[in-house]
Amino acid sequence: MKLATLPNQTPDGRLHVVSRDLTRCTPAEGVTTMQALIEDWEALAPALAAQYETLNAGGGTAFVPAEALAPLPRAWQWLDGSAYDSHGDLMQTVFKLEPNPKGRPLMYQGMSHQFLPATADVPLPSEQDGIDFEGEFGVICDEVPMGADAATALGHVRLLVQINDWSLRRLAPIEMKTGFGWIQAKPACSVAPVAVTPDELGSAWRDGRVDLPLVVDFNGTRFGAAEGYHMSFGFDELLAHAAQSRSLVAGTILGSGTVSNENFREIGSSCIAERRGIELLDTGAPKTDYMKFGDGVRMQCCLRDGTPLFGVIDQKVVPNT
Amino acid sequence: MKLATLPNQTPDGRLHVVSRDLTRCTPAEGVTTMQALIEDWEALAPALAAQYETLNAGGGTAFVPAEALAPLPRAWQWLDGSAYDSHGDLMQTVFKLEPNPKGRPLMYQGMSHQFLPATADVPLPSEQDGIDFEGEFGVICDEVPMGADAATALGHVRLLVQINDWSLRRLAPIEMKTGFGWIQAKPACSVAPVAVTPDELGSAWRDGRVDLPLVVDFNGTRFGAAEGYHMSFGFDELLAHAAQSRSLVAGTILGSGTVSNENFREIGSSCIAERRGIELLDTGAPKTDYMKFGDGVRMQCCLRDGTPLFGVIDQKVVPNT
Repeated sequence: MKLATLPNQTPDGRLHVVSRDLTRCTPAEGVTTMQALIEDWEALAPALAAQYETLNAGGGTAFVPAEALAPLPRAWQWLDGSAYDSHGDLMQTVFKLEPNPKGRPLMYQGMSHQFLPATADVPLPSEQDGIDFEGEFGVICDEVPMGADAATALGHVRLLVQINDWSLRRLAPIEMKTGFGWIQAKPACSVAPVAVTPDELGSAWRDGRVDLPLVVDFNGTRFGAAEGYHMSFGFDELLAHAAQSRSLVAGTILGSGTVSNENFREIGSSCIAERRGIELLDTGAPKTDYMKFGDGVRMQCCLRDGTPLFGVIDQKVVPNT
Repeated sequence: MKLATLPNQTPDGRLHVVSRDLTRCTPAEGVTTMQALIEDWEALAPALAAQYETLNAGGGTAFVPAEALAPLPRAWQWLDGSAYDSHGDLMQTVFKLEPNPKGRPLMYQGMSHQFLPATADVPLPSEQDGIDFEGEFGVICDEVPMGADAATALGHVRLLVQINDWSLRRLAPIEMKTGFGWIQAKPACSVAPVAVTPDELGSAWRDGRVDLPLVVDFNGTRFGAAEGYHMSFGFDELLAHAAQSRSLVAGTILGSGTVSNENFREIGSSCIAERRGIELLDTGAPKTDYMKFGDGVRMQCCLRDGTPLFGVIDQKVVPNT
């Protein structure tokens, strides 16, 4: 099943079912918003799945991704991991950070009251802050009880999403040094227009991981196509980690962190900071600049047969006015 | 104006106006929930203020604080500062942390999808985690635009609240070391039952600070009565810091961090960790234990003439089952 949220003058928008090929859509029957669906998933999803199959056979209206909001335009909780060791290890080397223990996921809580649409301009305060994208995968879960183990948590993964976690790199180390995590360095994220149920990935959803490449283009040039599978912890383990001392509210979005692979010199990166780190290691100095206003990034993940999944993130950064 | 939220079988409860002496209440007219009020404060608050004055003259029904939910039972954003240098400096000394730069507020983003009622039992996973309370003040703001300065932010402070920021101290340094902030170490906070407009404090609301003592009792014994005024940054400055690269959604709750004063040996502390730090410095070892299941904490802040403000936090920790 594929779902999107279209604007309707309310903060949460109107939930739509989208055809498998992402060309057509129809308002969800029996439920108005993504949040309402996720709060009562087991009761509501079967009818939507039937509606989805009907839509795939024909009908509906044109789905215009540029009109879509984020699938969940605001959420009660956004937790972001950093589950790709090749990225974390490189950042530690480059920024001379203390190594993190390997047996424990890295995770921060980020702002969740606003997720930007996939093709909206992204207003940010200053080019001097080191504007960077981070291509990620994420899950949306329904309620996970406090103390749930990974197997239990996996059963609460209802939807998968694709995220651009905007980062302001010159602020990040200042905030990180406090140990308190990031406020200024992590403005609102953007989300690809379509959320999909895990079964849409077939065998590419395995071990609580997305076994597909995330293709990233920066200003029209291929930047990376890292494989999503290589997480040191699956989403199931990340959710269980988060639920150790809290229940996770239905509609929690949990991210993977920047998708990264060990062969990043060949396969490329999902954020500029990683590319700069490689340049620093290899040549003594970073040469790729962070984003300037007007610069654009495009991110897409399809099945290996080319079937679209989440739609496309394609947006540019602009000055906040 | 004083406001509380009573249960009505919905997650957001039913907003009530509470009499100045906290003995009587009446359902808010023209608005159902605290979130709806804060989203449209300027339009809705005047009529509520009139209702409040009528209630103060008589009428309404008994206000039973033990029935109240948190004033805002869930919020789109919870940001918590650490604005009392006497606390921060002590923690740095005791835990041998690197000193933080003084010109920049400390702040983390915490879980906001659940704020516990002031007298509800607090379920936590383990006594081994170092269960601690943290007595704080907080503000609830309506929307603060990205880039707002402190003076602008101050104008968006609509309500003041009193918070117990539950902390799991044995997990905190492990998470802090990553630089990512806290997930497991910061479960849901509790909030005193009544939110008040700043004018209820009279001259005790000044410089964006609460100039009143927060009285804390641990298992029935006085633990501290630290003065709220001594923040190194006022709430206005904390809000502006938070709004540097994001707009703050209406209903954002921002906390002061554990209330602490330089003369903590005389005036006491608002959390056990601070007391243990003092013991460690003074005697070579901490002697006050963290909380065991069944232990209770009580927190209250009144005007200096004894007029109640936020009501009382009075609760105990229990095992999560």
